[in-house]
Amino acid sequence: MSGPLSFTIHNKSSENAARTGVVETCHGSFQTPAFMPVGTKATIKGVTPDLIASTGSEIILNNAYHLMLRPGDEMIAKFGGVHEFMKWSGPILTDSGGYQAWSMADINTIDEDGVTFKSIIDGSKIRVTPERSIEIQNNLGADIIMAFDDCPSSIAPQSQHLERRRHALTVRDGALNEDEHHKRLLQSLDRTARWLERCDKAHQKKDVQALFGIVQGGTNLDLRSRSVEQVCSVDLPGYAIGGVAVGESPNAIAEVVKYTASLLPEEKPRYLMGVGYERDIVSAVAAGIDMFDCVLPSRNGRNAHAFTRNGQIHLRNARFKEDMSVLEEGCTCYTCAHGHGRAYLRHLYMSKEMLGGILVSIHNIHHFQSLMVDIRAAISENNWSWLISRWPCLQQTPATT
Amino acid sequence: MSGPLSFTIHNKSSENAARTGVVETCHGSFQTPAFMPVGTKATIKGVTPDLIASTGSEIILNNAYHLMLRPGDEMIAKFGGVHEFMKWSGPILTDSGGYQAWSMADINTIDEDGVTFKSIIDGSKIRVTPERSIEIQNNLGADIIMAFDDCPSSIAPQSQHLERRRHALTVRDGALNEDEHHKRLLQSLDRTARWLERCDKAHQKKDVQALFGIVQGGTNLDLRSRSVEQVCSVDLPGYAIGGVAVGESPNAIAEVVKYTASLLPEEKPRYLMGVGYERDIVSAVAAGIDMFDCVLPSRNGRNAHAFTRNGQIHLRNARFKEDMSVLEEGCTCYTCAHGHGRAYLRHLYMSKEMLGGILVSIHNIHHFQSLMVDIRAAISENNWSWLISRWPCLQQTPATT
Repeated sequence: MSGPLSFTIHNKSSENAARTGVVETCHGSFQTPAFMPVGTKATIKGVTPDLIASTGSEIILNNAYHLMLRPGDEMIAKFGGVHEFMKWSGPILTDSGGYQAWSMADINTIDEDGVTFKSIIDGSKIRVTPERSIEIQNNLGADIIMAFDDCPSSIAPQSQHLERRRHALTVRDGALNEDEHHKRLLQSLDRTARWLERCDKAHQKKDVQALFGIVQGGTNLDLRSRSVEQVCSVDLPGYAIGGVAVGESPNAIAEVVKYTASLLPEEKPRYLMGVGYERDIVSAVAAGIDMFDCVLPSRNGRNAHAFTRNGQIHLRNARFKEDMSVLEEGCTCYTCAHGHGRAYLRHLYMSKEMLGGILVSIHNIHHFQSLMVDIRAAISENNWSWLISRWPCLQQTPATT
Repeated sequence: MSGPLSFTIHNKSSENAARTGVVETCHGSFQTPAFMPVGTKATIKGVTPDLIASTGSEIILNNAYHLMLRPGDEMIAKFGGVHEFMKWSGPILTDSGGYQAWSMADINTIDEDGVTFKSIIDGSKIRVTPERSIEIQNNLGADIIMAFDDCPSSIAPQSQHLERRRHALTVRDGALNEDEHHKRLLQSLDRTARWLERCDKAHQKKDVQALFGIVQGGTNLDLRSRSVEQVCSVDLPGYAIGGVAVGESPNAIAEVVKYTASLLPEEKPRYLMGVGYERDIVSAVAAGIDMFDCVLPSRNGRNAHAFTRNGQIHLRNARFKEDMSVLEEGCTCYTCAHGHGRAYLRHLYMSKEMLGGILVSIHNIHHFQSLMVDIRAAISENNWSWLISRWPCLQQTPATT
């Protein structure tokens, strides 16, 4: 491995654009397509690093925005970086905080130099520029770090979360008509391109940390194309697709991902940020995506929703009251292997006992990792229909039963 | 082993009344003196059975009162008992619920036949008699079950908790003068004795579950003596001392325990209920106690208090902000062995992340089990001063630094 990251493609599907491979980093390697569980604040909620490893997870995600605010990136640097801080010895990726600065802060101002927002912890004014974002991520010391980008404004109108972001945009931009909005989007992409160059220039640890650029452009394929051209003009170890799965339909996600992935360099890992349900992951893999992250398995685990190959089940449902079967027959996760029954897990949720969320988070993360194992097998054996037959949930809308 | 339990004494201290031994049950054995972590609702909060075992715990405690209310003892019986329900294959002891009926219920009425109280879950009226309590515990299937007793009224006036109980007593008994109070105490002991006979008679699983009687009497040594005589007139596999550590001073606890333990049959295990700090445990072992349970390690763990040989530390304290040392140097618990530093644990608490409580609960339970290991070594090697020298916290009031 020369440089902070190497990517070797092992198999390419003859049926679609999917491929298997291995990414090597300074903290070991991970197989692709890969799913990264989300450990926002240097912990995957309620699950010890040992148990995370037991799910088959080889790389995890932390969030630079949250860790900068608490306990502080300089402090984590003192401790030798986030691997040492949280005792996860495998590869780690940190998200830059560009998305969080927009989606979580009360008040934002943005200018050519950077973003100013209120701390969610103490209300203090925080300034993040591309240079500062890279400094934060250099301090945290993850193996893969993400560019700091201007918040994309091309977003679908669904979901509460989006409404919040739309509100922030309105605060920032005032009410825009359609032309003005398109102009703002172009501005945002161009600024993101300039910021990427500043990120690359500011990056002090190119020998051990791989910087990924982020392609934006919402659901507008022309804008995606423009963004790919801009972002890929900076030679980086990998590229990500951002601004997807913020409320669009599965078909809209699939179309954007398929189009955008095909434009990205083939020899570099492609990372689809924040996606998603099993169906979205499989569709994106077929489009040539190599890396995924999502909070679904742990968040839904805490909310008593367990993933199975036949769809999610809601463990508070009275029909599980006397059901002592495990979450999924034949499942080799810690929770199922130890025989913890649905009725017991239901009892834990009904009794507000934290062990319920812990055990189901472990199962859910293992569920996604099992999907990735099958995806990799389907690619190397050119048997996509076998994959689809083993995962009935792929043909469902992800409703909970 | 003939019967549900056998107790073999291995070593007796020449310095005091302490002894080491082994208790065998239908679900395996445990060494004594033993510490039982508390898993009230069939879970030790946040800790998987595997990790409980990793602390050195060989027997755990569940609560019949809580499990009767939810998910219900009949349901647990259907699943093959509480061992199978919660996937703890080692010995389990269930508390009868007599104490909880009094300390937790809104409204109580008591008569010669039993206790009526309001469910803490749905406010419904619950009736528990000695027969019903044994039926519940037969359904749960723990290896050791406890007699259902009339709530002792001789209590020290400290602590909020006590105030609640005193209030309940006032509701029940009206305002009593000293004579009337003493009379009520005598009544309560005599009723407890009659109830113990009913418990013993109702017990349907004498081949696999060992019923322990409970000696009451508060801090009045005459009443303790009377209670011992009554309770021990029923030939049982073991006896417990109840009504201690409900707010008395350490010296008062020590005096009552020393006096009462000396009256109990030597060849049966002696269990001191709900005690306590390290200092209280060591003093009670010296008086001849074999078994302990306490919520302190897990409750304090969730509240960011970590036990060390030098006393408790409060991890929210700013002085741990940059302290990457483990909770206790040389500690072999899961948390310390994996190198989780104080600053990281503090970060988890400050960020409201459940992993903090999980990791410190594990450490704290291991701390108590390490104390028991050293206690057993001190007894078998007749070296009590070695024990005292290794545990500076024994000479402190249990304040937190």
